[in-house]
Amino acid sequence: MMENPQPPEGRLTVTDRTRLRRMRENGSTARADLDAVLAAGFICHLGVVVDGSPMVVPTVYGSTADTLYLHGSVASRSLAADPEATVCVTVTLVDSLVLARSVFEHSVNYRCAMVYGVPRRVTDPDEKLEGLRVLSEQAAPGQWDYARRPNNKELAATTLLALTLDEASVKISAGPPDDGDGPDAALGLWAGELPLVAAWGRPVPDPALPDGTAVPAHIAARTGTAV
Amino acid sequence: MMENPQPPEGRLTVTDRTRLRRMRENGSTARADLDAVLAAGFICHLGVVVDGSPMVVPTVYGSTADTLYLHGSVASRSLAADPEATVCVTVTLVDSLVLARSVFEHSVNYRCAMVYGVPRRVTDPDEKLEGLRVLSEQAAPGQWDYARRPNNKELAATTLLALTLDEASVKISAGPPDDGDGPDAALGLWAGELPLVAAWGRPVPDPALPDGTAVPAHIAARTGTAV
Repeated sequence: MMENPQPPEGRLTVTDRTRLRRMRENGSTARADLDAVLAAGFICHLGVVVDGSPMVVPTVYGSTADTLYLHGSVASRSLAADPEATVCVTVTLVDSLVLARSVFEHSVNYRCAMVYGVPRRVTDPDEKLEGLRVLSEQAAPGQWDYARRPNNKELAATTLLALTLDEASVKISAGPPDDGDGPDAALGLWAGELPLVAAWGRPVPDPALPDGTAVPAHIAARTGTAV
Repeated sequence: MMENPQPPEGRLTVTDRTRLRRMRENGSTARADLDAVLAAGFICHLGVVVDGSPMVVPTVYGSTADTLYLHGSVASRSLAADPEATVCVTVTLVDSLVLARSVFEHSVNYRCAMVYGVPRRVTDPDEKLEGLRVLSEQAAPGQWDYARRPNNKELAATTLLALTLDEASVKISAGPPDDGDGPDAALGLWAGELPLVAAWGRPVPDPALPDGTAVPAHIAARTGTAV
């Protein structure tokens, strides 16, 4: 890969892969945008190459300022074949449908981060525990302190991968349809956005729970909050 | 690729790629399960191989009984390099967090379809229009009849890809945590599911609209409905 010059402070390094070819207007090289997209999600789509073909699997992740942590099991086939293989991790948040006057101008407003890199298998016990905490807290905040933490046997049975955030791109698409000032505006049709709202619902107790087991506050408080 | 025997009626053909290695208990080879997952979504993650590395991009799709239609622009780099290249299309619907008594048993309930194949570029004008209708109606039902349809110039500017549903797998994870009958049940902790509810919000009019332009019924009716 070509050497890339150091980017200005707070900007992402642009590589051949992360240079935005389509919808350049939506591309962002701001580090803060990457951090915000990664912080807002908890499911990513991990792309690996297996026997020359792509494989895309959903999995949970957790992110810090410089690292994305992933469960390793889904990447195991690819990693076993080639520990130096690059993966692509994509996090997508869909915000709304863009309903235009013409079908051609219909689109989707979304925020998307793509991270490329060769994942590192985390072996240091302290980093592994911390990485699992980050991963767990991203999807289920508060559970690390509430539930029983992994014991040594469970830690040994878990493969944790770390991917640095050195090579990443962000696309953000927002706003109304594009055809409000074109000839199609004369059609007199309604146009706008239909927001997609994702929120946590009411907790559903495990049927195996004894009657009267209270929902802890950190879980109950999430009901109705946006995801 | 190995020849695969014809599957029983209503079952998916299992190939080396679609054989479920992990969480076999969640795998389904029922054709109806594949159809249901594909019908429930409208965003997929398309995986292609570019210069030997995976690239995963979100895009809209539309599905029929035997075909998945995709906008071709996102796959153009990969297709230009190798028109015979296999792609992987993954559709994921996240249903709930599974909050167990131990962090180790935490997981996510989801439905996921993965489709492999070599996409075909749709060139027949009738199929192209029908494919775009399927794609448009999957995300924005009713808009094909309401908005202005693509004209010849727009059709020519659109690359539509078709992927047969011959090689696909489905994983469905559902239900309460697994540790309700293990030693951790004695911890007395709450456990269960936290549902993730995705629904359409209130339509947001394009600021360019003349005052009083009514929201059409087919859009207004979606507010509050599940995605």
